[in-house]
Amino acid sequence: MIKNLTNVKGIKCWGAHTGIKSMRRDLAIIYSEVPASAAAVFTQNQVVAEPIKLSRKHIKDGKAQAIVINAGNANACTGEQGREGAEAMAKAMAEELDIDKKMVLVASTGLIGKEFPTDEIVGGIRENVKKLSSKSNAGSFVANAILTTDTFAKEGFVEFEVDGYEINMAGIAKGSGMIHPNMATMLGFIVTDVAIEPKLLQKTVKKAVDKSFNMITVDGDTSTNDMVGVLANGKAGNDMLKSEKDPGFDNFSENLEEMMIHLAKLIVSDGEGSSKFVEYEAVNAKTEKRARQLIREISDSSLVKAAMFGRDPNWGRIICAAGNAGIPFDYTKVDLYLGSDAELIQVLGKGKPLEYDRNYMKRLLRESHLNVKLDLCEGKASAKGWGSDLTTDYVMFNSVYTT
Amino acid sequence: MIKNLTNVKGIKCWGAHTGIKSMRRDLAIIYSEVPASAAAVFTQNQVVAEPIKLSRKHIKDGKAQAIVINAGNANACTGEQGREGAEAMAKAMAEELDIDKKMVLVASTGLIGKEFPTDEIVGGIRENVKKLSSKSNAGSFVANAILTTDTFAKEGFVEFEVDGYEINMAGIAKGSGMIHPNMATMLGFIVTDVAIEPKLLQKTVKKAVDKSFNMITVDGDTSTNDMVGVLANGKAGNDMLKSEKDPGFDNFSENLEEMMIHLAKLIVSDGEGSSKFVEYEAVNAKTEKRARQLIREISDSSLVKAAMFGRDPNWGRIICAAGNAGIPFDYTKVDLYLGSDAELIQVLGKGKPLEYDRNYMKRLLRESHLNVKLDLCEGKASAKGWGSDLTTDYVMFNSVYTT
Repeated sequence: MIKNLTNVKGIKCWGAHTGIKSMRRDLAIIYSEVPASAAAVFTQNQVVAEPIKLSRKHIKDGKAQAIVINAGNANACTGEQGREGAEAMAKAMAEELDIDKKMVLVASTGLIGKEFPTDEIVGGIRENVKKLSSKSNAGSFVANAILTTDTFAKEGFVEFEVDGYEINMAGIAKGSGMIHPNMATMLGFIVTDVAIEPKLLQKTVKKAVDKSFNMITVDGDTSTNDMVGVLANGKAGNDMLKSEKDPGFDNFSENLEEMMIHLAKLIVSDGEGSSKFVEYEAVNAKTEKRARQLIREISDSSLVKAAMFGRDPNWGRIICAAGNAGIPFDYTKVDLYLGSDAELIQVLGKGKPLEYDRNYMKRLLRESHLNVKLDLCEGKASAKGWGSDLTTDYVMFNSVYTT
Repeated sequence: MIKNLTNVKGIKCWGAHTGIKSMRRDLAIIYSEVPASAAAVFTQNQVVAEPIKLSRKHIKDGKAQAIVINAGNANACTGEQGREGAEAMAKAMAEELDIDKKMVLVASTGLIGKEFPTDEIVGGIRENVKKLSSKSNAGSFVANAILTTDTFAKEGFVEFEVDGYEINMAGIAKGSGMIHPNMATMLGFIVTDVAIEPKLLQKTVKKAVDKSFNMITVDGDTSTNDMVGVLANGKAGNDMLKSEKDPGFDNFSENLEEMMIHLAKLIVSDGEGSSKFVEYEAVNAKTEKRARQLIREISDSSLVKAAMFGRDPNWGRIICAAGNAGIPFDYTKVDLYLGSDAELIQVLGKGKPLEYDRNYMKRLLRESHLNVKLDLCEGKASAKGWGSDLTTDYVMFNSVYTT
């Protein structure tokens, strides 16, 4: 049996069908038996959905005990009616669970600008809170209930030790299946039974998001509803982690980062209309920030993405895209490698084009998992990022009528 | 007969075939009989072609007398050999014209990372400087000699008055025909016989570029070779323009801006693989800068561009893209209009979706010239921008092998 959210101590969940989406589960509830340290990272988009506004308020004290997510309606650009809807979701959860409504985080995903179906969702919450369960199938239900056009559920589970205590950590995510317009929301939720102070958790979550969810790209756009939330309820019994120097903190931090990278990569590999998964790596940069900016710019470039689709070892586009990142770097020092997961071939040495077997390269680029490695030869920092290619299918999917 | 560069007093030019490109003219020479005030704006890409580096140096004193442009080889990522090639171009021009080599601006467009064919180009310069002509056909030759994959030459000419003197202004440009990889260079050259001080010219050129060439997008990427250069040789005889308050300055400034917008729009309409020309307008913004940033973000969004291709009135994507511009705005105040050049239909009122005739809208969006208007209802500034759609053809063109 697959381990999931329900294998984290003190966590119960449920995923139900309320009717907002015609055929699939569309309401997810996650509950911790005890108040948990909570941290979250929200969309940087200036247009922010109502549930994001509410969750930002509720998480300020670094505590939460429940998360409710509806799929099918984004509750964005919905005005006062939407604001009341998000509030009603938190209130219904709080009443049914007998907790303060500030302990409830709310998230939504789906169509933008449609009236929010508050009554159906509140009814669904009241009906389904009583079904909260720690059985494995409940974990599968909740992973599926947050999906929109995703073609598979995205889950992860890991066990590790902190200072001699066994820690469980589980995560779910949804990504940007792009067939249906306005549904590019990225959501990620991770629960763990480690004991950690809210401030340290928030700092650790922010760092991990920067290395994972913030390093993937399908469209280059962030949505109105993006959110990554983490609950850590302390049921594992370890001494509360308060500082980065505490024993076991590094292990927690690494596992959180790996979990987020795992979920982020699953999101990229489910990008509708994409045919390839591309891992980008920048090594030997002066700073990690520089490496990340270069990777983001390269993986976001339409020209680079189209070249990946066409199996075209077009190093000129990659260097040109890197040049658009707005950070000075010396391309006459740069080495560049292209290839697949299995093998990389150097195409640039100190900024100069190298000879290589073009037919062999073409065969390599037929793989569905491609790799691009940029060696800046200027320092010791590195970063990775993940992206899709730009395909004719992508354009077809994204040009269909909303009407 | 069409007026062109040769109708500007004191300007001679020639466009020749040196053999770098197999079938088309590939060397352009523009010469002013007297030293001219010169201003230019160069690519923001961190990877900069050799001719750009040289021209930046040569234009520092605000003076120039000749421009030489080769097409077919970008002289980018070519190292010392390329640096020497660009120097040799300027030197050959200077010797043949008997002027200081610092009076020569150099530009290149074509493939990145190929050895620079210095000998052929220098030979071409020495052979063709003697053909410099003020006959109309020379103007056509030069407009064609800077093209790469462009499907038509981009030219403009305008006459206007400054303080009672007749001023001539002519321009040529090349854009991002994207069939062939690594050829996304944008070049623009404008010559005029107005008398204007270099500092004021540079300031005026920068402002006009910000409203024109900087407001178009095909890929969102800038290339290693982008350059817009202006020569003003004073042969019209007007009193030297020294200040924005001088009589006739406004008229010069407006005509320069209109010329650049004219050339910029021609570039967008020649974007290979695009099927629509889209004009974006943001009105009633607090500042022009805000309006421009929003327009750039919207017109660069792959999701918005795919919707334009699909004739999809998808306001959610437009608002979401605006939200990604990184500037706070209140979408509950925003009105949004979509349609064609002939008619706009309001789809959002104060951030709320409005009812409209969807079948009528679909018919409207079949036009090849579409319009998007965002009314921020927050101030009095406005901006326009121009972009293409994202088509399946674009992806096909841009995924072909370089190999």
